Amino acid sequence: MKTYLDCYPCFFSQTLKTSRMITSDERKVREILTEISLFLPNISFDATPPEIGREVYRIIAEMTGVNDPYKEIKEKCTRQALSLYPELKKRVHSSKDRLMSAVRVAIAGNVIDFGANADFDLKSDVKTILSQDFAINHYREFCEAIDKAKKILYLADNAGETVFDRLLIEELPKPVIYVVREKPVINDAVREDAIAARIDEKAEIMSSGTDAPGTILNLCSEEFLKVYRSSDLVISKGQGNYEGLSEEDKPIFFLLKAKCQVIARDIGVEYGDIILMKTDKN
Amino acid sequence: MKTYLDCYPCFFSQTLKTSRMITSDERKVREILTEISLFLPNISFDATPPEIGREVYRIIAEMTGVNDPYKEIKEKCTRQALSLYPELKKRVHSSKDRLMSAVRVAIAGNVIDFGANADFDLKSDVKTILSQDFAINHYREFCEAIDKAKKILYLADNAGETVFDRLLIEELPKPVIYVVREKPVINDAVREDAIAARIDEKAEIMSSGTDAPGTILNLCSEEFLKVYRSSDLVISKGQGNYEGLSEEDKPIFFLLKAKCQVIARDIGVEYGDIILMKTDKN
Repeated sequence: MKTYLDCYPCFFSQTLKTSRMITSDERKVREILTEISLFLPNISFDATPPEIGREVYRIIAEMTGVNDPYKEIKEKCTRQALSLYPELKKRVHSSKDRLMSAVRVAIAGNVIDFGANADFDLKSDVKTILSQDFAINHYREFCEAIDKAKKILYLADNAGETVFDRLLIEELPKPVIYVVREKPVINDAVREDAIAARIDEKAEIMSSGTDAPGTILNLCSEEFLKVYRSSDLVISKGQGNYEGLSEEDKPIFFLLKAKCQVIARDIGVEYGDIILMKTDKN
Repeated sequence: MKTYLDCYPCFFSQTLKTSRMITSDERKVREILTEISLFLPNISFDATPPEIGREVYRIIAEMTGVNDPYKEIKEKCTRQALSLYPELKKRVHSSKDRLMSAVRVAIAGNVIDFGANADFDLKSDVKTILSQDFAINHYREFCEAIDKAKKILYLADNAGETVFDRLLIEELPKPVIYVVREKPVINDAVREDAIAARIDEKAEIMSSGTDAPGTILNLCSEEFLKVYRSSDLVISKGQGNYEGLSEEDKPIFFLLKAKCQVIARDIGVEYGDIILMKTDKN
């Protein structure tokens, strides 16, 4: 998905929020906003939002010297999510269709976000999503693809959401490779966030090789690309991965909650909708 | 009130919204966003938001050749407001305290906004405000000031809101001078908007001499400043006028709904609160 002009004000909001998390010096915050102001006019708007987001967060990190401002928030989200795990596990176990129930749980975990939409309440939002209708639901195709697949490439999104992903991975009958970001960016999951969610007990963890807040293939490592190209089923979590892969012609299933108007419009659903959607190019 | 860094993303949102009202050419919209990007780092943040807003809307007008993009919207708002007039008039007439009721009505009209918060529903929002508690209510002082005043200077805010202002002016027992902007900016009321609301039948209409979306004294005409300096009571409607006059040491009563977090915080109330507040410097 290309970047829309609507992303412009959002990049400034994200810069403001993240800079203020790092420093209470408003002069410094203004310097960072100025730098972003001067950077944005030069970008190609053929770029995807995660490519621009990567640069925005790199500028913030460079100007403040803080590379992982969301570290504590990520740890807190993982703890919160782990506290919900037993109840969610019970819910999946007692469902008529355990896989469907686990898909819902995985999408529910996608409410955790500190980029586009940081205004969430984990427990109540998860509860809402668990009984929300899907705006797009390619579940039948999803089941067929799982049947046929030798292994599943699962692209992670945010820390904490990782715990919800684990509940879906535990229901998948094929080997799973769980892909995280190489370096911290916003609250996206890196290897240690996946391990904190105990994903390593159920899946192989690998890095995509990038610090973009999404799977941008031309920024990924050759090692990841080899695995990606050879995989017969990709599960892609969240907005950042959708933004990077929406134009791909591989069988990818996007699991997400549309947390911004721009993405909702790009997909063709309403703001707040949840989807399990197969790429339409295959 | 000085400009806060939180205003930064908002200026971009406003630029985007207004530019898209004028043109569907996204390249043009991007050119305008770029110009705003390059302009904002150079401004003094001692400036008030209306001073910066004035420049932002000037850039949009210059780059598009459209000086009054909100003209039709303003006319529509005035028509909508006029259709509510008979019902509101009846409400004021049947109140125990007609002045208080008219103050409420005037504040209710302040929901009309296409700058900071364009997401309103006139009829239902007005209904809500008519029964909302005041977060700050200096009504006793307001009544005393009216008793003492020879004439009242009433600073208008938006077109359509003008009709609600008329209902308050009709209850004021002293001569009123109703002050509008000199030139169109956003949906702020100019002379013709005041006349469309038939304010001219109840008050003298004068221009502040500025095209800033607020009363910024150093941008006002000498003619207005003479009247302003000699007036013993000022009623100031809306956020833009508050932003320009919040530091003044004259008796000014601010009537507004806090439609953005920054102003709410500056006043010391919650987002969405309504206030009738006297300047505290006198």
